[in-house]
Amino acid sequence: MKHASVSEVRDEINSALEQVIAGWQGPRVLVDAMRYSLMAGGKRFRPILVVSASQVVGGGGIDPVPAACAVEMVHTYSLIHDDLPAMDDDDYRRGKPTCHLVFGECLAVLSGDALLTDAFTLIVRSYSSRPELASSLVRELSTAAGSSGMVAGQVLDTDPGAREAEGADLERVHHLKTGALLRACVRMGALIGGASERDVARMDRYGMLLGLAFQVVDDCLDATGDLATLGKDPGSDREAGKVTYVDIMGVDGARDYARSLIDDALDELKDYGERAVALRWLARRVVERTC
Amino acid sequence: MKHASVSEVRDEINSALEQVIAGWQGPRVLVDAMRYSLMAGGKRFRPILVVSASQVVGGGGIDPVPAACAVEMVHTYSLIHDDLPAMDDDDYRRGKPTCHLVFGECLAVLSGDALLTDAFTLIVRSYSSRPELASSLVRELSTAAGSSGMVAGQVLDTDPGAREAEGADLERVHHLKTGALLRACVRMGALIGGASERDVARMDRYGMLLGLAFQVVDDCLDATGDLATLGKDPGSDREAGKVTYVDIMGVDGARDYARSLIDDALDELKDYGERAVALRWLARRVVERTC
Repeated sequence: MKHASVSEVRDEINSALEQVIAGWQGPRVLVDAMRYSLMAGGKRFRPILVVSASQVVGGGGIDPVPAACAVEMVHTYSLIHDDLPAMDDDDYRRGKPTCHLVFGECLAVLSGDALLTDAFTLIVRSYSSRPELASSLVRELSTAAGSSGMVAGQVLDTDPGAREAEGADLERVHHLKTGALLRACVRMGALIGGASERDVARMDRYGMLLGLAFQVVDDCLDATGDLATLGKDPGSDREAGKVTYVDIMGVDGARDYARSLIDDALDELKDYGERAVALRWLARRVVERTC
Repeated sequence: MKHASVSEVRDEINSALEQVIAGWQGPRVLVDAMRYSLMAGGKRFRPILVVSASQVVGGGGIDPVPAACAVEMVHTYSLIHDDLPAMDDDDYRRGKPTCHLVFGECLAVLSGDALLTDAFTLIVRSYSSRPELASSLVRELSTAAGSSGMVAGQVLDTDPGAREAEGADLERVHHLKTGALLRACVRMGALIGGASERDVARMDRYGMLLGLAFQVVDDCLDATGDLATLGKDPGSDREAGKVTYVDIMGVDGARDYARSLIDDALDELKDYGERAVALRWLARRVVERTC
């Protein structure tokens, strides 16, 4: 899969998300708020990871796109809630005013809740003919997103006292906040593709390294980017008193560290030949990205 | 099942919830906030419904308690988020200060998010040897809780404009806000018990009528109760400008209406003899309750 095909996958994800939205039967204003954040022009990095990982281990003829959409819904819910005034209090996301600024705080909380919940409905409906797979996918996604995954990361990220109490360093915070969901993406893709335990373990390690690199680069961009390219307020993490990789190792050091992490991630893919072209391209994109 | 055995089931649910909590590995402050709201002394009406419904259709040897705990976690998440300042802005719940007053708004949002997410983890882990059942239970729970269920009800309940735009009357709002989850309880119990489609349909109708009666009685209590017996601020719904059944039919009229709904609900149970003793007792409790 070359760059062109990655963008084809992105288009496919976007069409599939539009179809998912078309099926929602909730109150108009709720659907509008959910749609606003879900279709705000994200890079679709996570769903592309799901699809790409499903190809590495063969494919197996099962469509990875519904699971990919579910992951994007969970990611979007986390952005909406993280941006709330009571949390990071951000005004811009993906280059647009945040959900609570457009729809109010009440609807922002509820549209996040609904995206999270509906993600699980989407999985069990889409894979109803394969209940064992459906059940495994729910387990991967809910474990990655829950109290010992993404939510734990957000708690540690927003609460210095909790960080200290847990003895959690920066790496631990980001493994939870960003890494857990990225790992779930490649694990879910691998499961859909019919991977062996050994393949799932490799995908897991690839996802873990990718997640960490992703966060290191995020810190670099937060220190050096601007609103126009980032689509969110730069410097907001530092303003919020959060420790970043740039604080610890400087911009150049952090970029070097990200590159070494990606080299290790690429190493996990060395046995997969052509089928891992997309995963390799995505790994390189992580260090090359500017937004 | 007599009153005594209903309270035995409640004890069993509470012990099981304590065990679930003991397994949580998130940051201490997050687990504390989740535990605070989950163990704040709720009546456990919903989990008892799950267990009772599983007995009506035979039982089938599968433990309904994990699913019952998952429902209580989803119910508790909805209370935490509904009580937020941006939503109903309530100070008391189950007789104790609300989660955001004790732990702050940020942690209240996140502990609700985690309870919701972890509920799905609990289901797929607990029923992993029965993936088809696990998948169906996730589907019932997520559909009832999501954008066309409980969240939709909360949107309509808090937003008069949305109510008008959707042409949603009071009954519709409560079918979504309270009824959807209560129906899911009895449907989930029936599925665990190995029910036929006909049985599930009857349970569904019982749950729907029970849910509506529950809400009608809630409105009566909100109009006549006090903080000490209710465990939450009385009159808060009316203060928030919400239309209630008491506004439409007065307290006596609303109580009569609740009784007729419960008679219809009991009618759905007439073929189940002794096995429906608990569900009958629960139905009668709905109109007799004072808190």
